[in-house]
Amino acid sequence: MACHIRPASAGDCGDIVRMMKELGAYEKHSHGTEVTEEALIKDGFSAETPFFQSIVAELPEGQKSKEGFTIVGYALYIFSYNSMRGRIIYLEDLYVIPEFRGKGVGKQLLKEVAKIGQDRQCYQIQFAVLNWNQQAIDFYRAQGAIDLTQETGYHIFRFEDAAMTKLAGAEANP
Amino acid sequence: MACHIRPASAGDCGDIVRMMKELGAYEKHSHGTEVTEEALIKDGFSAETPFFQSIVAELPEGQKSKEGFTIVGYALYIFSYNSMRGRIIYLEDLYVIPEFRGKGVGKQLLKEVAKIGQDRQCYQIQFAVLNWNQQAIDFYRAQGAIDLTQETGYHIFRFEDAAMTKLAGAEANP
Repeated sequence: MACHIRPASAGDCGDIVRMMKELGAYEKHSHGTEVTEEALIKDGFSAETPFFQSIVAELPEGQKSKEGFTIVGYALYIFSYNSMRGRIIYLEDLYVIPEFRGKGVGKQLLKEVAKIGQDRQCYQIQFAVLNWNQQAIDFYRAQGAIDLTQETGYHIFRFEDAAMTKLAGAEANP
Repeated sequence: MACHIRPASAGDCGDIVRMMKELGAYEKHSHGTEVTEEALIKDGFSAETPFFQSIVAELPEGQKSKEGFTIVGYALYIFSYNSMRGRIIYLEDLYVIPEFRGKGVGKQLLKEVAKIGQDRQCYQIQFAVLNWNQQAIDFYRAQGAIDLTQETGYHIFRFEDAAMTKLAGAEANP
């Protein structure tokens, strides 16, 4: 499917949040999607150093979705670092609305992320997938991705809100 | 132990690479540590937008390590984004040389990362731990971290060098 992949702008944040909410519901996140259009604009397009980068997949006006949208997919990524090898891209989201899946839109978005990464001398793209999301796993594996958790035993850990606040205020000596 | 936690500068990159190599050997990375002092300076201290941030733990000259080092620990982190909640910190490395472990240096570094995150309105610290690294798991759990892979099934995936190159050059339509 011929869609136009381009860098997102502040004006796309309403569309991106709409798709983020779909993705959050699909992935059954306990919090739901709390990020707002205002927060996205502030964090990605107003900060002196943006917290993320984003691209969108846009259709010509005549091919818009049943609900009337021309932005039918997006990728959100971060320039990050691996201390063993160097520059990487962390792919936080890659999403295409259900109506336009299976038409190569996801692959076009992924290709663009890979090209952007190569332009900045990043050597890999890292991301997280839920182990029950077989559709996503099949898609990424078909493109050559490996499951690092399975292969090397890496687990993702987090200090969430309360634990982080406690850390920040903690006495440093044990 | 009273050590000074401060932002790293380009002049610390030699010390940081020394410790990265120790960490890479401990974690048994297949590639070993390929990042060089020159790459670290370029990627963290010369780029218009640095690929990472770093802090170091420094001892007074009179308390230096047996091998004569005053920089005995470091943390390397990235300002990143969670599309459900917003700003986060990704902690790529937290390391203290063996001679100075168990003295609260790691906790001081972690506390500083948490404080920096709070100052930038980050709500969580995310990181990866190898599932056989019980010493690290015990340390992070004691500070309130949760294992997201265990709790929600998130796996880390990667497109490594060749797969990424192929993606970047791939035809977008299936």
